[in-house]
Amino acid sequence: MTGSLVVVGLGPGGGDRITPAVTAALTRADDLVGYRRYLDRVPAMHPAQVRHASDNREEIARARFALSLAAAGRQVAVVSGGDPGVFGMAAAVFEAIETGEPAWRALDVTVEPGVTAMLAGAAEAGAPLGADFCAISLSDNLKSWATIERRLRAAAAADFVIALYNPASKARPHQLGAAFDILASRRSAQTLVLFVRSAGTPQAEFTVATLGKANAALADMRTIVIVGSSETRLLPRDGRSPWVYTPRREGGIGP
Amino acid sequence: MTGSLVVVGLGPGGGDRITPAVTAALTRADDLVGYRRYLDRVPAMHPAQVRHASDNREEIARARFALSLAAAGRQVAVVSGGDPGVFGMAAAVFEAIETGEPAWRALDVTVEPGVTAMLAGAAEAGAPLGADFCAISLSDNLKSWATIERRLRAAAAADFVIALYNPASKARPHQLGAAFDILASRRSAQTLVLFVRSAGTPQAEFTVATLGKANAALADMRTIVIVGSSETRLLPRDGRSPWVYTPRREGGIGP
Repeated sequence: MTGSLVVVGLGPGGGDRITPAVTAALTRADDLVGYRRYLDRVPAMHPAQVRHASDNREEIARARFALSLAAAGRQVAVVSGGDPGVFGMAAAVFEAIETGEPAWRALDVTVEPGVTAMLAGAAEAGAPLGADFCAISLSDNLKSWATIERRLRAAAAADFVIALYNPASKARPHQLGAAFDILASRRSAQTLVLFVRSAGTPQAEFTVATLGKANAALADMRTIVIVGSSETRLLPRDGRSPWVYTPRREGGIGP
Repeated sequence: MTGSLVVVGLGPGGGDRITPAVTAALTRADDLVGYRRYLDRVPAMHPAQVRHASDNREEIARARFALSLAAAGRQVAVVSGGDPGVFGMAAAVFEAIETGEPAWRALDVTVEPGVTAMLAGAAEAGAPLGADFCAISLSDNLKSWATIERRLRAAAAADFVIALYNPASKARPHQLGAAFDILASRRSAQTLVLFVRSAGTPQAEFTVATLGKANAALADMRTIVIVGSSETRLLPRDGRSPWVYTPRREGGIGP
């Protein structure tokens, strides 16, 4: 039988944000391959299905292993959180194909999208991504900090809303604060900053701050940080969390 | 009974990319409010449910109408394509609240995320959004073309992958070509450009070009355009469509 490989996105956390197309792909698979924390979110599908959990930061090795299973005729699902194309496993799979066995290029390899963290995080607080925006990973494991700084400066100058993925980890506790400093030198201190933790799950919570007073220590591996544009607005409510949104129209809201 | 309003995202097109949370919200609703083309994608839920279809470009009026229904005690779902927080109805609803009846701020208003077009478009072709990226709407109905130009220049300088929403319409046939010209003055002519039409549906198709030769006429209202970064790669295959992906690692692929 001809093997196949599908890279699927589980969405932000709660099972009710997994698309039916992803569920169908998981159900069909002989083998599930992924980072342990994501595999733990997949319910048991059928008894013959095999799970191959690996540690984080082993993306290319994991992708090669999954491709070798598919080349041997297995139906393989590689599992990512969020969307697999956004700082997820999809790019690793294609890199493994390009640098791997020539036969892997003939495999049936597809990507099933999911709800990525910034969309789920934005939805918790309102609509902060309502206008042009960018997504930057603050991890410098795979790129230089100079590149990250250059992108932060450009994003600030162009007045994008900025979603910061991988804002902090135990190994990188200082980068979010450094990013805030760069943005604060180019944006008003009143710029809204949103910390959303565990977006898309029943445990979701968010904090709104301003760039002048944002505390980078609020972020951890489960946090997505969204820095507003000059147009992003706070909509207060009596006795409840405020909403945060960015109007689609430039230059203010109104009748 | 207390009314509520949920803004839901139907995802890119095919029904198997609608999350169960969105389906549940649609099922609960007394009233569905939205642009006709999106409402037509929602299957019949229950006989008492009322549909209120409107034309495009009436977002604020539509949002006010939906809020007035919720204020009258109805359970209302406002329907967007893709994700409602990305160039969709969510920001319009919050703007309508801020500029509308004070009582609307006390309503239960939530956002249910979906798979936005660039994620579905990227998945059709591989993983072009694999590194830092931005999303820019080319429509100048709600912002100036000067702002769009400024963001395109900044995105090119910072080497973002660039997803272009609303790349063309009958009323705006020339803007995508103008955007390509701006990008081509700052990026290599070999930069990959991807046109994905009807992403996430069985009719999906994509074309790969280079910035030096990209034909803007390939785009219409159903197209998402993704312009690669300097790192975005083409992975050719014998007798099949190539894959396009952006490696997560800066500066090249390999062991």
